[in-house]
Amino acid sequence: MQRKSFDGMNCSIARALEQVGEWWSLLIVRECTLGTTRFDDFQRRLGIARNVLTARLNSLVEDGILDKVLVEGSGRRSEYRLTRKGEELYPVLVALLQWGDKWGGHKPPVKLVDHRSGKPVEPVGVRVGSRSLGPRDVRLEPGPGATAKMADALEMRNRAMLGMG
Amino acid sequence: MQRKSFDGMNCSIARALEQVGEWWSLLIVRECTLGTTRFDDFQRRLGIARNVLTARLNSLVEDGILDKVLVEGSGRRSEYRLTRKGEELYPVLVALLQWGDKWGGHKPPVKLVDHRSGKPVEPVGVRVGSRSLGPRDVRLEPGPGATAKMADALEMRNRAMLGMG
Repeated sequence: MQRKSFDGMNCSIARALEQVGEWWSLLIVRECTLGTTRFDDFQRRLGIARNVLTARLNSLVEDGILDKVLVEGSGRRSEYRLTRKGEELYPVLVALLQWGDKWGGHKPPVKLVDHRSGKPVEPVGVRVGSRSLGPRDVRLEPGPGATAKMADALEMRNRAMLGMG
Repeated sequence: MQRKSFDGMNCSIARALEQVGEWWSLLIVRECTLGTTRFDDFQRRLGIARNVLTARLNSLVEDGILDKVLVEGSGRRSEYRLTRKGEELYPVLVALLQWGDKWGGHKPPVKLVDHRSGKPVEPVGVRVGSRSLGPRDVRLEPGPGATAKMADALEMRNRAMLGMG
């Protein structure tokens, strides 16, 4: 039911949440970035009910975020691997991780380091050149998929948030 | 019930999802970055049931993501505003937006532009200097909150994902 309202929203955030907003989906994607590929390993590591895991994995495969690959010479065993579309969720995961590190009220359990240079990964941010932008620095303009009604709404939003006009 | 399993996970992503993983929470935060402050406006714009909205807003206030402010001279009207903690979810939102733009199967409805320079916002990424990193470029090291058991698991993960050893 809630999905319906998302579908009707002309918003890429809503569309993204349509595919990965469900409770477990991003944690399954996280597991994939940790090298997990097999159903039983997802199940054990996440402590998730098998029927829920099956539903989530199927939906991620259907949305093209995971590939389900039959492992050769293994009988019927299959593995789940991130597609390109799935790998491109990495900034979302790392942004959540850094926010959780900062605001979660616990010491960070993990440090992310560039394997090549050994340097720590920078804070994921909304940037233009060296400037880091918050919602009050960003102007919203109609994109190629905007409706006429949206253009007015964006102008109102810019006036409210940027103190223009 | 599912919350319980998250609590037990020593993971900042899980902790972040604990606070904003619920279906509507990030869309409410999105609304705040669009200048929405009043209950009735959230309700109308999101098309969300009033009891669900009340529960979500209360939980975001409780987690320190929103402030509920009584508007002076307005009788009993209150407004919801992002705290610093809430504003720092902006990279998560923009990363989801850009991913939805690219993979959502629709033309981008909105363009994000730096208000000061007029330049388009760059893709949100996991970076070190000018390099953009994916999960296979990042080594995980134990952080200050790591347990001994985790250190072993991270080494296994690094071996699997980075082809080390």
